[in-house]
Amino acid sequence: MKALDPAWRARFDPSQWFLEPCEEVGALFGLECVEMLLDERTPWQHLQILETRHFGRVMVLDGFLMLTQRDHFIYHEMLVHPALCSQRAPRRVLIIGGGDCGCLREVLRHDLVEHVVQVELDERVTRAAERFFPELCEANDDPRAELVFADGIGFVAAAAAGAFEVIIIDSTDPIGQAARLFDRAFYRQCRRVLGDTGVLAVQSESPMIHLEVLAGIRGELAAAGFPHVATLQFPQPTYPSGWWSATLAGGSAVAAVPGHAAGPLETRYYSRQVHQAALALPRFVSEALENSAGSG
Amino acid sequence: MKALDPAWRARFDPSQWFLEPCEEVGALFGLECVEMLLDERTPWQHLQILETRHFGRVMVLDGFLMLTQRDHFIYHEMLVHPALCSQRAPRRVLIIGGGDCGCLREVLRHDLVEHVVQVELDERVTRAAERFFPELCEANDDPRAELVFADGIGFVAAAAAGAFEVIIIDSTDPIGQAARLFDRAFYRQCRRVLGDTGVLAVQSESPMIHLEVLAGIRGELAAAGFPHVATLQFPQPTYPSGWWSATLAGGSAVAAVPGHAAGPLETRYYSRQVHQAALALPRFVSEALENSAGSG
Repeated sequence: MKALDPAWRARFDPSQWFLEPCEEVGALFGLECVEMLLDERTPWQHLQILETRHFGRVMVLDGFLMLTQRDHFIYHEMLVHPALCSQRAPRRVLIIGGGDCGCLREVLRHDLVEHVVQVELDERVTRAAERFFPELCEANDDPRAELVFADGIGFVAAAAAGAFEVIIIDSTDPIGQAARLFDRAFYRQCRRVLGDTGVLAVQSESPMIHLEVLAGIRGELAAAGFPHVATLQFPQPTYPSGWWSATLAGGSAVAAVPGHAAGPLETRYYSRQVHQAALALPRFVSEALENSAGSG
Repeated sequence: MKALDPAWRARFDPSQWFLEPCEEVGALFGLECVEMLLDERTPWQHLQILETRHFGRVMVLDGFLMLTQRDHFIYHEMLVHPALCSQRAPRRVLIIGGGDCGCLREVLRHDLVEHVVQVELDERVTRAAERFFPELCEANDDPRAELVFADGIGFVAAAAAGAFEVIIIDSTDPIGQAARLFDRAFYRQCRRVLGDTGVLAVQSESPMIHLEVLAGIRGELAAAGFPHVATLQFPQPTYPSGWWSATLAGGSAVAAVPGHAAGPLETRYYSRQVHQAALALPRFVSEALENSAGSG
């Protein structure tokens, strides 16, 4: 269809590319690959690790790109730091999913944190991360870290009220197994475990192409008893549309200027100014979210 | 390389997709196409208009996607409104390039504007926009608008000192013909034409994958005598990395809180808050820009 650069088109060998279609919007994203490092059927999903030409190693689950070594820092920092920095004393943190351990590492940058539990369903994801993404797992031996391989929903249901100040939901897209991590029944359990002052952070898809999913997540959070909900947006070049979001929810205000310790954190994307700026949603996004809130 | 979803892979017919490789980072972006509407060799470039399945019509120049009907508003609003809103009285505006007329339309939303000149090298681009993107050209008949088809560099060189309050450079990437729009000789002429209080806005590529290009643009602007330079970033889902930037430059401060008229503007992305937020650069971007400023 694109007539130009026939030389490139002739050279193009789809078998040498990781290709991820986003069928609902007729878009395609690809990364040139050098080598397949791991190709494993775990009890839960299809796990692949590829070496790309310019984005380092990438992790793929069921055909969807989860992270690249080049740009994952944006996602991990923006899912973790706004939540922790909005808390006065984030001592006990729970991560649901996040088997690549990237969120865990960011959480452990906070000196105030005393205990982090990461509850990942698929142990093979973490084992692959330890082997192929050692930088993400560099904090796994921190005595404050506890790795649990179990169903996050069961874990939260069994946790005591007020057991955590922060819960981070680092899940795959809301389809299949992960869909249950996006509904009000689960969020209601999170609300109970966080008490009135804790904060929940959930990856909430693309503000561009999943706006109705984002609105749905916010609606479920409100229905679960979180009176305060705030969405932050940030670029994520290797996710569909290159643009992603995280949503915070709490019994108390969550969209305040960041609190205790944004300054000394070692980050590449996050800063106090970036946190504040990420809360300023484009007009078409905030209008869509207001409208859906009004109707729900 | 990606073993999963063999069904999709078997279905995938590259000839039905617009595919744009970004060879320097080994990435690929694609949009599923329905029909080629125009395929023309103009005196200056290869111009194609395609109907896509979910992004509306798209314009492609020399194989690079210039705009889609679905997401161009972000780019056009963020290249135009921060510059005009930073001016107390943006009466006379010059657009260099911008043949699709998307910037022109945004400029004409400002009631204070009395005269806009759009200087596009390739008249065929504007004729194609009139035919296939009528919504972008809806303001072309505004009596304040003047369309000139000529070389922007010659136009600026011939313009009087202080002739414009705002210059917007809506160019293609800094290669080929367009490279001359990114150097200090041209910027120096812009500086003269803007006087001490005018503002220049230039599209300045991706903060992620063209960070050295962005740093170079800022360096050339400084070398051309603009003491104040500020970069804004925003998502642009169909450009490489899905993340883009615009850089403002002026003899006076350009990064202040927006001025006269951000409120009543009819926009989908831009707002006063979004303007302010777009100036908050992620840590790795601001550090890279500071370092290059220090060394140049």
